[in-house]
Amino acid sequence: MGSLPLDALQPLDPDTFAADSSAVVDFLAGYYRDVDKYPVRAADLEPGRLRRLLPEAAPEFGEPAERILADVRRDVLPGLTHWQSPSFFAYFPMNASAAGFAGEMLSVGLNVVPFMWVASPAAVELEATHATFQKGARLVGISPANFRVVPTAAASGYALTGAAVRAAVEGDVARGLVPLYLCATVGTTGIGAVDPVRELGEVARRHGMWLHVDAAYAGSAAICPEYQGYLDGAELADSVSMNPHKWFLTNMDCCCLWVASPAALTAALSTDPEYLKNAGGGKPQAAAGAGAIDYKDWQISLSRRFRAMKLWFVLRRYGAAGMRAHIRRHVAMAEWFERAVSADERFEVVAKRRFSLVCFRLRGGGDAMNRELLAAVNASGRVFMTHFVVEGKFVIRLAVGGAMTEMRHVGDAWELVQRTAEQLLQRR
Amino acid sequence: MGSLPLDALQPLDPDTFAADSSAVVDFLAGYYRDVDKYPVRAADLEPGRLRRLLPEAAPEFGEPAERILADVRRDVLPGLTHWQSPSFFAYFPMNASAAGFAGEMLSVGLNVVPFMWVASPAAVELEATHATFQKGARLVGISPANFRVVPTAAASGYALTGAAVRAAVEGDVARGLVPLYLCATVGTTGIGAVDPVRELGEVARRHGMWLHVDAAYAGSAAICPEYQGYLDGAELADSVSMNPHKWFLTNMDCCCLWVASPAALTAALSTDPEYLKNAGGGKPQAAAGAGAIDYKDWQISLSRRFRAMKLWFVLRRYGAAGMRAHIRRHVAMAEWFERAVSADERFEVVAKRRFSLVCFRLRGGGDAMNRELLAAVNASGRVFMTHFVVEGKFVIRLAVGGAMTEMRHVGDAWELVQRTAEQLLQRR
Repeated sequence: MGSLPLDALQPLDPDTFAADSSAVVDFLAGYYRDVDKYPVRAADLEPGRLRRLLPEAAPEFGEPAERILADVRRDVLPGLTHWQSPSFFAYFPMNASAAGFAGEMLSVGLNVVPFMWVASPAAVELEATHATFQKGARLVGISPANFRVVPTAAASGYALTGAAVRAAVEGDVARGLVPLYLCATVGTTGIGAVDPVRELGEVARRHGMWLHVDAAYAGSAAICPEYQGYLDGAELADSVSMNPHKWFLTNMDCCCLWVASPAALTAALSTDPEYLKNAGGGKPQAAAGAGAIDYKDWQISLSRRFRAMKLWFVLRRYGAAGMRAHIRRHVAMAEWFERAVSADERFEVVAKRRFSLVCFRLRGGGDAMNRELLAAVNASGRVFMTHFVVEGKFVIRLAVGGAMTEMRHVGDAWELVQRTAEQLLQRR
Repeated sequence: MGSLPLDALQPLDPDTFAADSSAVVDFLAGYYRDVDKYPVRAADLEPGRLRRLLPEAAPEFGEPAERILADVRRDVLPGLTHWQSPSFFAYFPMNASAAGFAGEMLSVGLNVVPFMWVASPAAVELEATHATFQKGARLVGISPANFRVVPTAAASGYALTGAAVRAAVEGDVARGLVPLYLCATVGTTGIGAVDPVRELGEVARRHGMWLHVDAAYAGSAAICPEYQGYLDGAELADSVSMNPHKWFLTNMDCCCLWVASPAALTAALSTDPEYLKNAGGGKPQAAAGAGAIDYKDWQISLSRRFRAMKLWFVLRRYGAAGMRAHIRRHVAMAEWFERAVSADERFEVVAKRRFSLVCFRLRGGGDAMNRELLAAVNASGRVFMTHFVVEGKFVIRLAVGGAMTEMRHVGDAWELVQRTAEQLLQRR
């Protein structure tokens, strides 16, 4: 395996990690020392002040942590209400502590995702492409019988097509049903397929459906011009989401949601209206100043974590150039793996690779041997891959994207897959 | 003001904070250095292994951070799937980075709650007691017209009574409606009122309603025996919640939810059934081992942060005795403030204080002067308090609970309130 001419961004280099983290610890210890010197409630700064202080775009090149912290001190702290001030007696307490912080650091630093008991590794992957969406629909009272899964096929790279979606919607309309919501996925979890956003957007517009574009994983790639075409038509969407905690160097959890009309969210989620005014006997709410945003009206819960801070820190620290190098580095590794698989006639690549995910299988042996191959590879403890089922066939997924993954790890993975496959084939 | 004979637990002492945090930074830097030596996927450990390693109860006395970290290394790391391993190619990537970590530390350390534009301070407090609950009801399709707010009065300390709730439920049943859900609050946000859980539980049981006990704020106090009586009857509840991020020294966010029957959650939130098996063409899920818990089936989203880590760290680091001292210290400060207000005939305490929240108002001057008093006190920048409306009257809330709050801060707040009130009264 050749070496790749890649930028040497090492986002989890232990020495850089320790140095940057120590700078933040010192910053925070100083903050606690001085917090009673700040006005407890944010000074009466006009809405939009911080936005005007910020540049229009992320920096092209990364900056040292100290410079970023200096900006936090100068621009962010004056705009905060200091919930940790000893003289904060408002709302309810919101405790911080050295131990709570230490435990949170551990959780954030280990950055594991305990969503299931992983000892049953065969169990999960099947549901990752629709599960949350389906749950959401069920929660708001939409019967599973009215939830449509439109089939996809190899010809479209397992993406939805405008024609298939149009036929499904028109069929439902003819039966007197009302089409409500359409989800286009840019980079499905299973195989990285890309739905045609513009085609689907046109169907959605024609029928008054809400179009959501789910770019949870692959949206990160859109920082590179060569991937922006996949979002063509996004201006037809009502909402677009991507998760920087997946492939954008931002620790769990952080999800970006763009909405074309924030008023649609606040109409559904605000609790200002009638009921409270009547029941509480209180005064109507003071109108917030122009440009003021109350995020409680954009979400279900009242409280909210300050997640923007970490995404901003990532963009400052690594710069747009660093982030592009990060994405391209992983894509190049996946390309290498894809070529290696294609060059070995015992294997086949299943579904076109678009980002950093390669789906493949052993040609001979059927599903049983592919299952066995994956189980043996994972049991070695040296790598961890998962699977998906495409048109009834079991395929193995190699999803490149770890902050510490280097070319040699991908190369080792391929050698391990080959060697294990040889043993299985010889045993037949 | 006298000094109080209180335990000297200082949860945000800057030196302890810096030392503990540095220990965690070193731990994590070492973890990143060695992560490729661990089996990537968690070894095949039996479900329940970690539970057996853990003691039955939290330690009575706090322990040093180093000892806790040694236990993490010995007991927790071997049970993890290492999402940050360079050879993790499963599911999707879940990026950590030095910058993402630094930004998250800042967010967690500042521990502010940006739920609204605070420059309109008059706007929020009214809705805190019901807003999220009402939103949830609306989201699952319950018409606001079918949402009952049962009035409370001074006689019951502004708590619900079994009689009033029974009358409301029976009235609805007589009209052919089906009662579904009853929320009892132990420590309301507005004034800290405590609903009679056992009485409400009996009504709920009789009518087959789900009883939820919301102890978000005051639940922390139940670590002290003298407050456990407020939860009498909780065995009749279907669910109980409390937020350690409020008053239990655990940084945002952390909410504990107990459910009497986890099967009720998984029946509503699991996505294993029919649809996916049919649509995906995959195999039915392997049955998880006895005792294995897949948290994805307890919640709406698939991913999940590892929040238990910080609550566990807090309990180890401060011990049950430290946590009781933390709670009692704040209650004692609130008692002192309550006595001071009561001793000044210009003021009145509104609603009985039960925990660390004191509601009071100036007797003369009506709502207008009380509003003015609060605005002036907050404008000083030296404290931040909020308000509530009780039976149409504007009351000022002093909510004690900050990790760095000492008796002198409460004393200063009272002096500031008195001095400001004097100026307002003289002006009349």
